[in-house]
Amino acid sequence: MGEGCPPAPLPPGSTIGVLGSGQLGRMLALAAARLGLKTHVFSTETGPACDVAARTMLGAFDDLPALAAFARTVDVVTYESENIEVEAARHLARLVPVRPGARALEVAQDRLIEKQFIASLSIPVAPFRPVGAAEDISAALANFAASSILKTRRLGYDGKGQFGIDPGDDVSAAWQRIGALPAVIEKRIPFLREVSALVVRSVTGELAYYDCPLNTHEHGILRRSVVPSRLPADDLARAQKIGGAIAAALDYVGVLAVEMFYLGRKLQPAARLLVNEFAPRVHNSGHWTIDACAVSQFENHIRAIAGWPLGSTERHSDAEMINLIGRQACEWPRLAADQGAVLHLYGKREAREGRKMGHLTRLFAKGDG
Amino acid sequence: MGEGCPPAPLPPGSTIGVLGSGQLGRMLALAAARLGLKTHVFSTETGPACDVAARTMLGAFDDLPALAAFARTVDVVTYESENIEVEAARHLARLVPVRPGARALEVAQDRLIEKQFIASLSIPVAPFRPVGAAEDISAALANFAASSILKTRRLGYDGKGQFGIDPGDDVSAAWQRIGALPAVIEKRIPFLREVSALVVRSVTGELAYYDCPLNTHEHGILRRSVVPSRLPADDLARAQKIGGAIAAALDYVGVLAVEMFYLGRKLQPAARLLVNEFAPRVHNSGHWTIDACAVSQFENHIRAIAGWPLGSTERHSDAEMINLIGRQACEWPRLAADQGAVLHLYGKREAREGRKMGHLTRLFAKGDG
Repeated sequence: MGEGCPPAPLPPGSTIGVLGSGQLGRMLALAAARLGLKTHVFSTETGPACDVAARTMLGAFDDLPALAAFARTVDVVTYESENIEVEAARHLARLVPVRPGARALEVAQDRLIEKQFIASLSIPVAPFRPVGAAEDISAALANFAASSILKTRRLGYDGKGQFGIDPGDDVSAAWQRIGALPAVIEKRIPFLREVSALVVRSVTGELAYYDCPLNTHEHGILRRSVVPSRLPADDLARAQKIGGAIAAALDYVGVLAVEMFYLGRKLQPAARLLVNEFAPRVHNSGHWTIDACAVSQFENHIRAIAGWPLGSTERHSDAEMINLIGRQACEWPRLAADQGAVLHLYGKREAREGRKMGHLTRLFAKGDG
Repeated sequence: MGEGCPPAPLPPGSTIGVLGSGQLGRMLALAAARLGLKTHVFSTETGPACDVAARTMLGAFDDLPALAAFARTVDVVTYESENIEVEAARHLARLVPVRPGARALEVAQDRLIEKQFIASLSIPVAPFRPVGAAEDISAALANFAASSILKTRRLGYDGKGQFGIDPGDDVSAAWQRIGALPAVIEKRIPFLREVSALVVRSVTGELAYYDCPLNTHEHGILRRSVVPSRLPADDLARAQKIGGAIAAALDYVGVLAVEMFYLGRKLQPAARLLVNEFAPRVHNSGHWTIDACAVSQFENHIRAIAGWPLGSTERHSDAEMINLIGRQACEWPRLAADQGAVLHLYGKREAREGRKMGHLTRLFAKGDG
C-alpha cells in the first residue's frame, strides 16, 4: 500500500480486540463472527462477552505490560464502554490501531469537555456552566432562572451521578451530594421527545446512518426504542447530519450514538434538536438493528474498525425494542413463547435491579415512515 | 415436575453441548448466545465453532471417558453432523439428554435404512435396491431399465460416495469403484426442481415449518436456495407435511431437513414429491432464515433441544442464499462492498476446493409467494 492509501481491510481470520466484557462486547463478538473474524476480550472481570470470544485476558486498564501483551494478540482494538481509561487507549494505540480512538473517549468521559466540544461545532446544547464550587451552582441557577440538572463531569451513565435542582434549593447540600467533585450544571429543557442518531463512519470517512429511533427512558435507563420515530423527515435528516458532524470532527471510526432532545415544530428548524450527549460506541437504542436491518449496528461497527466497506443500514421492518431490566428478565419463559417477540438474553447470572439483562424486539411490516 | 410433564426448559446460563466443530456448530453457538445460553463443543479437531464456544474439548468419538467428562459439563447435547458415531450419541444419552436422539443418526447414516424407513411411512422415494455384490447392480439395472445412481450406504454427503450408472455399464467395475462396500442403487428420477422441507419439532411434539426453499446444486454441492420457491402452495404444504411426518416418526427434537425432488404438476398430487434424503440437523438450505426470519433455523433448533417453546418461523423478506465454495470466498472484499448482500464467513483458514467457506443472503421485499 502506498502512502496516503486507506489501510487494507483486515482479512477474515483476523482478531478484533474488545476492551470490556459486557453485553455490547458480546454482541460485537457475535457480529464479528458472522464476518469470519475472531474476538479477544480484555477486561477487569469476566462478563457476557467472554462466552463467545475466542479468548479473554483479565487485567487492569492501568497494567501497561498486560495491555501490551493483549495488543500482540489482536489486529485492531475497540471498546464497548466510554469509561475505559483514556491512558489505556493511548498506550494500545502505540502498538495497534485503536478505533474509535482515544480522543473520542477523552471527550465523552467528561461532560464539560463534551458539551464544549459539541457547542464548538455550532450544534445546539442546553445552556450549561462548569461547577467547581457551591457558588457556581447558585450563579448558574440565578442565570438560568429555571429548573436545572447538576451532573458530575465524569463517570455517569444510566442516570447515575446526576440530579435535578431548582432555584432556591440548598446549593451547599447539592454540592455535597454530588461529592464536591468537578461538575456541570445545565438548564432543564422541556422536550417533547428523545431521539438518537446512530451513525457509522468508515476508515475512509464514509458515513452511513440508521433511522433515528424514538427513545423512552424510565428512571434514567432506556426502556424502549421505536423506528420509525414518526418525527418530521426534515428534522430526522438534521439529527443524522448532527451525528455525522460530530463523527467527522472526532475523526471517528465505528458506530457513534448521539442522544438528542426534540423540542417540537413550533421552533425554528435549527433550534428543534438539542444534543444531550453522545456515546462513542454501539448503543442500546440501536439494538433493534440486529433484527430489523440486514446489517446491524454491531456488524457495521466491526466493518468500520476492520477497515471494511460499510454495510447497508437499510431497515427491512419497522421495529420496537424493549429493554429487560433487572427482574423483568425473569419473565423469559413467557417472552420465549411470545411469537411476536425476538428475545435476546445476555447470559448474566444475577438479575440485579437496574441491570440490563436482555432486550426484545418486535418487528412489523414496514409502513411509510 | 410430575411424571408425564414435559421437561422444564433449560434456563438462560445453561450449556448446550455440540458434537462437531464446523460452521453449523458455529451458527448454533451464535444462536444459543442470543438466548443467554453457553455452548461447549466436543470434536476430533478444532474448527469454526470453537472460536465462539465458551469451551472446546478435543477427543475421539469412541473415547467413552472423554465423552462422559464432556457430558458432565453440559445440560443437553446436540450434533451438527449426521456422521457422528451412533455409539457416541448412545453413550452420552445415558448421562444427559441427546436431542435429536441416536435413532435419527442411525437412520440417517445408512442410505438403505433411511430409504426403507421413509418408504415405511408411505412417503414416496425413488425405486431402490440394496447392493451387496456386483450381481445386485445388474439385477436392479435390469429391473429399472433406466439410468440409476449407485451410492454407498454410509458416509456420503455433498455428492461424495455416489455416481451414475446405466444399463449396459460394467457392473464389476462399478462395484469396485464403490469400494465393494454395502451400497444401494436407485433409479435416477427426472425431476423438475429440488426443494427442502425445514421442520422443527419441540420436546412436546409441537411442529413448526419454514417456507420450503427451492435449491440448486452444482457438482453435488448446494449452490443456491431461494424463498419463496414459486411452487404451487398445495405441493409446498405437502412437502411440509412429509417433513413433519418423518420428524414425528423419529420422535425427533430439533430442526430436521428433508430434501425432495419435485416432479411437476402433471402427476397426481401424491406422486409429485419424492424424498431424496433427510439430514437430522440444521441445514445449508435453511441459512437464509438467519437474515429473512425473526427466529432462524439455528435458534429454533436451540429452542427445541433446550425444551423452550418454538419461535416464529415467519419470513419477513424474500431471500436468496448463495454458498461461497472454495476460492469463491476469496471474493470477500467485493462481496463486503455489495450493499445488497448479507455476507457470512465461517472463519476457515484454507479455501480448499469444494469446501463451504461462507454464504451470502440477498433480501427482497416480500412478494405474494
